[in-house]
Amino acid sequence: MKGIGASPGIAIGKVLVKKDPEIKIEKKSIENVDAEIKRLEEARKVSKEQINKLYEHTLKNIGEKEAKIFEAHSMILDDPEFFGQVEQKIKSEEVNAEFALNEVTNNFVQIFESMDNEYMKERAADIKDVSSRVIKQLLGIETTDLSRLEEEVIIIAEDLTPSDTAQMDKEKVLGFVTEIGGKTAHSAIMARTLEIPAVVGVEGITTSVKNGDILIFDGEEGNVIVNPEEKVIEEYKNKKEEYEKFRERLAELKGAKSETKDGFEVELVANIGTPKDVDGVIRNDGEGVGLYRTEFLYMDRDDLPTEDEQFEAYKEVAERLEGKPVVIRTLDIGGDKDLPYLELPEEMNPFLGYRAIRLCLDRTDIFKTQLRALLRASAYGNIKIMFPMISSIEELRQAKAILEEVKEELRSENVKFNEEIEVGMMIEIPAAAIMSDVFAKEVDFFSIGTNDLLQYTTAVDRGNRQISYLYNQFHPALLRLVKQVIDNGHKAGIWVGMCGEVAGDPKLIPILIGMGLDEFSMSPISILKARWIINNLSREEMKEMAEKVINLPTAEEVKKFIEENIKIEF
Amino acid sequence: MKGIGASPGIAIGKVLVKKDPEIKIEKKSIENVDAEIKRLEEARKVSKEQINKLYEHTLKNIGEKEAKIFEAHSMILDDPEFFGQVEQKIKSEEVNAEFALNEVTNNFVQIFESMDNEYMKERAADIKDVSSRVIKQLLGIETTDLSRLEEEVIIIAEDLTPSDTAQMDKEKVLGFVTEIGGKTAHSAIMARTLEIPAVVGVEGITTSVKNGDILIFDGEEGNVIVNPEEKVIEEYKNKKEEYEKFRERLAELKGAKSETKDGFEVELVANIGTPKDVDGVIRNDGEGVGLYRTEFLYMDRDDLPTEDEQFEAYKEVAERLEGKPVVIRTLDIGGDKDLPYLELPEEMNPFLGYRAIRLCLDRTDIFKTQLRALLRASAYGNIKIMFPMISSIEELRQAKAILEEVKEELRSENVKFNEEIEVGMMIEIPAAAIMSDVFAKEVDFFSIGTNDLLQYTTAVDRGNRQISYLYNQFHPALLRLVKQVIDNGHKAGIWVGMCGEVAGDPKLIPILIGMGLDEFSMSPISILKARWIINNLSREEMKEMAEKVINLPTAEEVKKFIEENIKIEF
Repeated sequence: MKGIGASPGIAIGKVLVKKDPEIKIEKKSIENVDAEIKRLEEARKVSKEQINKLYEHTLKNIGEKEAKIFEAHSMILDDPEFFGQVEQKIKSEEVNAEFALNEVTNNFVQIFESMDNEYMKERAADIKDVSSRVIKQLLGIETTDLSRLEEEVIIIAEDLTPSDTAQMDKEKVLGFVTEIGGKTAHSAIMARTLEIPAVVGVEGITTSVKNGDILIFDGEEGNVIVNPEEKVIEEYKNKKEEYEKFRERLAELKGAKSETKDGFEVELVANIGTPKDVDGVIRNDGEGVGLYRTEFLYMDRDDLPTEDEQFEAYKEVAERLEGKPVVIRTLDIGGDKDLPYLELPEEMNPFLGYRAIRLCLDRTDIFKTQLRALLRASAYGNIKIMFPMISSIEELRQAKAILEEVKEELRSENVKFNEEIEVGMMIEIPAAAIMSDVFAKEVDFFSIGTNDLLQYTTAVDRGNRQISYLYNQFHPALLRLVKQVIDNGHKAGIWVGMCGEVAGDPKLIPILIGMGLDEFSMSPISILKARWIINNLSREEMKEMAEKVINLPTAEEVKKFIEENIKIEF
Repeated sequence: MKGIGASPGIAIGKVLVKKDPEIKIEKKSIENVDAEIKRLEEARKVSKEQINKLYEHTLKNIGEKEAKIFEAHSMILDDPEFFGQVEQKIKSEEVNAEFALNEVTNNFVQIFESMDNEYMKERAADIKDVSSRVIKQLLGIETTDLSRLEEEVIIIAEDLTPSDTAQMDKEKVLGFVTEIGGKTAHSAIMARTLEIPAVVGVEGITTSVKNGDILIFDGEEGNVIVNPEEKVIEEYKNKKEEYEKFRERLAELKGAKSETKDGFEVELVANIGTPKDVDGVIRNDGEGVGLYRTEFLYMDRDDLPTEDEQFEAYKEVAERLEGKPVVIRTLDIGGDKDLPYLELPEEMNPFLGYRAIRLCLDRTDIFKTQLRALLRASAYGNIKIMFPMISSIEELRQAKAILEEVKEELRSENVKFNEEIEVGMMIEIPAAAIMSDVFAKEVDFFSIGTNDLLQYTTAVDRGNRQISYLYNQFHPALLRLVKQVIDNGHKAGIWVGMCGEVAGDPKLIPILIGMGLDEFSMSPISILKARWIINNLSREEMKEMAEKVINLPTAEEVKKFIEENIKIEF
């Protein structure tokens, strides 16, 4: 079977299929009401313990924001109004606890879901989650507990939610394979952050394996083999060993320069979402942060983060990176990332809608608070500010004008910040790439966001499976735009980086070197391999290669050309 | 007040506000059941007459497809099952007819709407329409009947539906102004087809005028003046007279060449949706059809059109244009244009989804039927085939391969078609524009679809009001892409046309002449004015202008530059 390689590494081991069992709730008359209420109490208590553990585990291993969801669950479990109604029902109707709980849950959920309010709808989801946990407890149904695994396993699942990945015991999970998702799906990004091998998008995998089957997969190529012959296991064991040796060799590259054989030096930096992710950056010798996605600060909560909360997060990242560059992108919300408490309008095409800088220039209260926090944090490290989703010069100028206002405010309050702070923009909309000669005169740097840029350039929603065959990062149109942006940036004397998936793609890194890209921002786990590749390239040769590929007609031919002409020995 | 000029011309006259009255249905006990049923029968009869008239009127003035909707309404009125239930309710519950009808309607609608099926949902809408018509009849509520107007009026409405525009009495309607909609909205396109002046997107207009107010508007500039002073009325009367004189002068251009002062000749052709629209093309001396949108053939019906139905439609257009070119675009469905009976998947971003050629290459049954019809019709006139939404060479090659298959089929059946038929593609996705040098080697012509091209280039949904300020056809990124496409087309020796809004924009036509565009396809009503403009231009001067505008940084500056530097005397 074949899927999409989502996080590198080879996994060999026993299968654990994570399936949520079907729950059947029957209505039963009971005789002993008190005993039934006691059963409910007991199930609540156990659920509470589970949730507390999940909270602790998540807080320690993932982050504060991710842990908050379990805090909310815990509060529902403590809600006397909610469980009071359940008890009432058990008493008055003399029915079993699971039935009563289910009825009350459905009532609440229905009310919450009928409200035309995203926030309330999410609360409904929380109540459902908690209720289903208690019901399973009552029914004695065991669910796969990914935080307490007996032995080393490969997890197989339809999809993995944030709660699933949050609770995963990294010591026991050899890797995971899911049916759903692409390279940019949540589970794929989490796998790379946790440095667990993973393959996503393998249709039919959950029904074609069972617990205890032996499975092999390659998180780079996307190959998945079920119950392989001994010979194949041997082969992959060798591959795995080689891979591990290779990782060790890569580890030796820590501290080395990121330069080509002929002395062209670039910066290899990391994409991060939370201060916690800085661990991975340091562990993999990242030379800074090329994209700090600040939207995580705004997510999984009930209101906007305060200026101080933001300041603390930005400051922590800046300080821990000790003067290395930290490019912080201003809020990129909207599109597929909703903030329920902002009550954004429903849109027909959210990817072509009111999001990112469009929202910030409209909601300047939100924007200014973030800019204040960013500027204040800039006194503690090498922070650079980057605006997302710019499609016209007017928007850039407006954003810069608001930044100047905020600077002036801080000056008048005698709050210190870096007066020389660099200001850049994402190039992720075709119009920005096409007009990059003009934009280059008004910013300090560009960072090319290839994920969105490819999406708009080809008019293909990157989350739409039915047309995913059209979303191909070897598309020559994308490569032409990238080259144009780099050339225009350099002509104006500014540096050009990239923070989309392309920047970490081993096949495309040589082409980007050929085009003269200055900064490559990627998952921390990809950094040392990228350094290895770059150390083995000749910039002069790659220049020629880059010229050739952009004149090829199809993505397929671009890929084939690279595979045939650029060989890197690992 | 100011809106978007949607259809040219000046209107001066009395206001008629089209407002749907609020309907209150009270439950009443009745004594004489038979009399109540008779009331219902009477209301049904009158409604039936109204609908029949609408059907006739639409069939005669608009087209067969548009008329079909009233056929469906008529069938509901005749449905014994439906009205049987209403009568039953009146009898058994002894309630008034409007209450009973409303209850039964709600039941039906609820059932139909709960089905996860777009087709059934549309049926629900039909039932609601019919029921509300009968209820209004029962309650004696008069709605604004746009087909039977006493005097000349300017219609003011929130929005106008297809049924509204279909029934409009062209003799009495001086023009219309709506709150909702942009230049590409249905009502705007209809206004241009009917050659009625119109302004759309005027927020608050329905609440700031009342019946009998005097209103002036300019369908080109978008100005709307309520209860103007006598002086202003005079001024606009003069303007209107001038405009009419100008239209007369334009009429003299029928038969003239579409060439610049220095002899650069272009083709001025029309966008059409149905064979009926050919009237307007001929009336305005269009030199052919640059875009025949075939999706109307597929809309407002319950199943796919047969090969013969399509053949007849294409043949009719080709024959009536007597050898003039007719560019027919293959099915562009999906996105905002749904075909309920195809049960297309719901998508998060339909504009970036499974539509047009993407659907046709998947549903080759649909595609082949259309291609057969097109090829057969090509024996009767100068038909050219055009593929929409091409984003990669692979898609173009696939589409051409299928066309070859169909040709082979026809040959083996001895069915005649034009063996030399030209095959072209829309350039409406940035990737296609960027790769146009490569595409140009594999087609006979390009037609630039600026509406979508601008949408994808700027990542702005053109239907999203909240960000409509970002959708600007003077965006220099769009103009740069247009120039690139024209240059690449000419280098490969093929002709390049344009069928988006830009092609008919009086301010942008000179720039397109400067860039060397070969074919301009627009609303028939814009053709003679475009000819006038072109007759008054110097191609050499415009070349320089075009060079200059594409180096300006903002849409605003592009517009200003054109306004200041290119003056055309009318």
